[in-house]
Amino acid sequence: MAGGSGTRFWPRSRRRLPKQLLPVASARTLLQETTDRLVRVVDASRILVVTHRDHAAAVRRQLPQIPGRNVLVEPASCNTAPCLALAALEIARRDPDATFVSVPADHAIADARAFQATILEALAWAQHEPSAVTIGIQPTAPETGFGYIRVGDRLGGRTFRVRAFVEKPSLARARRYVASGEYLWNSGMFAWRTATVLDLLDRHLAAVTGPLRRALAAPQRARAAALARAYATITPISIDHGVMEKAAGVLVVRGAFGWNDIGSWAALGDLALAQKGGAPVVAIDAARYVVSSPERLVALVGVDDLIVVDAPDALLICHRERAQDVRKVVQELEQRGLDAYL
Amino acid sequence: MAGGSGTRFWPRSRRRLPKQLLPVASARTLLQETTDRLVRVVDASRILVVTHRDHAAAVRRQLPQIPGRNVLVEPASCNTAPCLALAALEIARRDPDATFVSVPADHAIADARAFQATILEALAWAQHEPSAVTIGIQPTAPETGFGYIRVGDRLGGRTFRVRAFVEKPSLARARRYVASGEYLWNSGMFAWRTATVLDLLDRHLAAVTGPLRRALAAPQRARAAALARAYATITPISIDHGVMEKAAGVLVVRGAFGWNDIGSWAALGDLALAQKGGAPVVAIDAARYVVSSPERLVALVGVDDLIVVDAPDALLICHRERAQDVRKVVQELEQRGLDAYL
Repeated sequence: MAGGSGTRFWPRSRRRLPKQLLPVASARTLLQETTDRLVRVVDASRILVVTHRDHAAAVRRQLPQIPGRNVLVEPASCNTAPCLALAALEIARRDPDATFVSVPADHAIADARAFQATILEALAWAQHEPSAVTIGIQPTAPETGFGYIRVGDRLGGRTFRVRAFVEKPSLARARRYVASGEYLWNSGMFAWRTATVLDLLDRHLAAVTGPLRRALAAPQRARAAALARAYATITPISIDHGVMEKAAGVLVVRGAFGWNDIGSWAALGDLALAQKGGAPVVAIDAARYVVSSPERLVALVGVDDLIVVDAPDALLICHRERAQDVRKVVQELEQRGLDAYL
Repeated sequence: MAGGSGTRFWPRSRRRLPKQLLPVASARTLLQETTDRLVRVVDASRILVVTHRDHAAAVRRQLPQIPGRNVLVEPASCNTAPCLALAALEIARRDPDATFVSVPADHAIADARAFQATILEALAWAQHEPSAVTIGIQPTAPETGFGYIRVGDRLGGRTFRVRAFVEKPSLARARRYVASGEYLWNSGMFAWRTATVLDLLDRHLAAVTGPLRRALAAPQRARAAALARAYATITPISIDHGVMEKAAGVLVVRGAFGWNDIGSWAALGDLALAQKGGAPVVAIDAARYVVSSPERLVALVGVDDLIVVDAPDALLICHRERAQDVRKVVQELEQRGLDAYL
C-alpha cells in the first residue's frame, strides 16, 4: 500500500513526492526499504504495489525489480479499504487460491529479520484458517495516535485470538492498555487468503467491491476510465473501520521489530534519524529538537522541542507536540493559492 | 562610526559583511541610510567614515559620494574611544576650528527631519560652548539594554545640562527612570568642537591619543604600519566609559525621531521591518515572530516568540528573549572551526 499523500511531512513531502517515495530513514526510500524487506519472504514477481495515479511513474522508477503490471494504479485516494479491495481482486484474478500479506509502504522497521519471521507466521495462520490475521505491535509507550488490539487466547507461537479492535485512546486509557499487557498497537498490516478478504469486503463493504468488480470486468483499454468512474462513487473508508472492527474470528500475531509508522516529523525524532548525514547543528540552550536539513547549517538558541525541516524553497518550524498540524500548513497553502509550495 | 562587527546579526551579518553594511531596514544599507540623513545637514565632502580595515573597500563601494580620503581605516576594532580619537585628530589636521557630530552608522531612524533638527541644535550648542553635547533619546519603554542620561536644568529648546550618565539599569530601575521623566536613553551620538573632544581625550585617555598622535605624525607611506602598531597598544574602551562619565559640563539635546539601535534581531521585530518584501510566512498558532527570509517560504506551527533568519548557507532559530546570545553561535562556529559560516 503506497497510496499516502503525506501532507504531514511537508515541506519534504509534496503532492508529487509523498513520504513513501522519500528517503526518510536511510538512503533508500521508505517504499524501497519496504520492498527490500519483503523480497526476503516473497519473490519480487509476486509483490504488488497499489499507488495513486500521480505517483505510479515514480513507484516504477524506484522499484525496477517489480514487474510493471504489478503496480496497481488508483485514480483517487480513498483510504485503505478500496486499496485492499483492488489488490485482492487483482490477486484473485491471477490466483484465486493465493494468500497474501498487505503492508503500508511508509513505515520504518528496525529489525527486518524479526519482521520477516512475523510475516511468515501470519501467512502460515492465514493459509490454514479462514480468518483475517493482523499484526499487532508490542507497545513501547502509551501512544494515543494508534488504534489498539485487545488480545485473547493464545493459539501458539506469537499468535492470539483478537478480542477487540479499539480506537485511538486517551492518554490515561493508553496507559492502562500498556500496563495491562493485553493490548497491542494496530499496525495496519494483515495476512489473509484472497477468498477470505473478498468475503469480508463483500459482506461489509459491498459499496466498494461492487463498483470495483464491474470496472475490472471492462476490457483492458477501457479499464482505467471504468476504474475512475468506480472510484468516483466510493466513499473513502479504512479497512479497520470498514471491516476489521466488525469481523469475527480475527487472529493477531504479536510483532516486536522496532516498528515506527513515521506518522509525523515528531516520530523521526524518536528514530533519531532526522539529521543523520545532514548539515551541522549548533544548539545553544536548545533541547529535544528534530532537525532535517540536508544542506544548510541550523543554529538553535534558547528554543526547546522544535521540529525544523529545511527544503530548497520552504522552511518548517513546528513545536514537537504540534507535528500533526503540519497538514494545516498545506491547507493554508492551498487556500492562499501558493501552489508552488504544495 | 562604521566599525561594528555585528555578530548579533548572524547569519545575515558575517565577518566580511557586518550589520552596517547590510540593507536591514530598507533597500539601502544602514551605512547608506545614515549618510543619506547626514548629507542634508553637511556636505558629503565633510562626512568622514571610520571603519575596520576589512570593511574599507565595501564602505567606499557603498558611498561613492564620499571622497576616498574621508574613509578613515582602523587596523583593529577597539570600541568607540579610539575611533573618535582617530576622527578628531584627522579633522583637527584639516581644520583645527571644526565642530563635528559623530553618529553610529548602524542605527535606524524613522523621522529623518526630526533627526536633522536635533543634530543642528546639538552642533549649535557645541559651537558656542566648550562642552561635549550628547543626544539623548526620549524613552518609549523601560529598556535595560541602554545606558541612560539623567537630565538637569534646561538651557533652551530641547537642550539640558547632563546630571549624570547611568549604566544599563535593572528592569525595576529602568521603569522608575522612564516614569520620572528625568532620564533619556544614551544614543552614542555626540557633537563637539574638535578642540573640546581632543582636550577631553587627552585628559582622560592619554594612553589612546598619545600613540595615535605619534602614528599620525609618521610620513604618509609609513602611516598605516604606524597606526597598526599604535592600535596594538590600545586597550579597547568606549567613549562613554572612557570620557563621558568623567567629563564635567556635558549638555544633552533631547531627541524624538523614532530611534532604534537595532542591537539584535529582536529589535527588528519592534521595527516590523524584518519580513518586508520577503517570502511568504504561513503562521498556524504562532505569534510575536520575527522572520527574515528573503527567498524561502517560512511555515510556523505552534511556536511563539521566535526569531527566524534564513541565509543561503545557514539558518538561525532563536527565542526573542535570547537575541543577544546569537553571538554565542558565532563563538561556537569559531570553536568548531566552521569558518565558512563566519
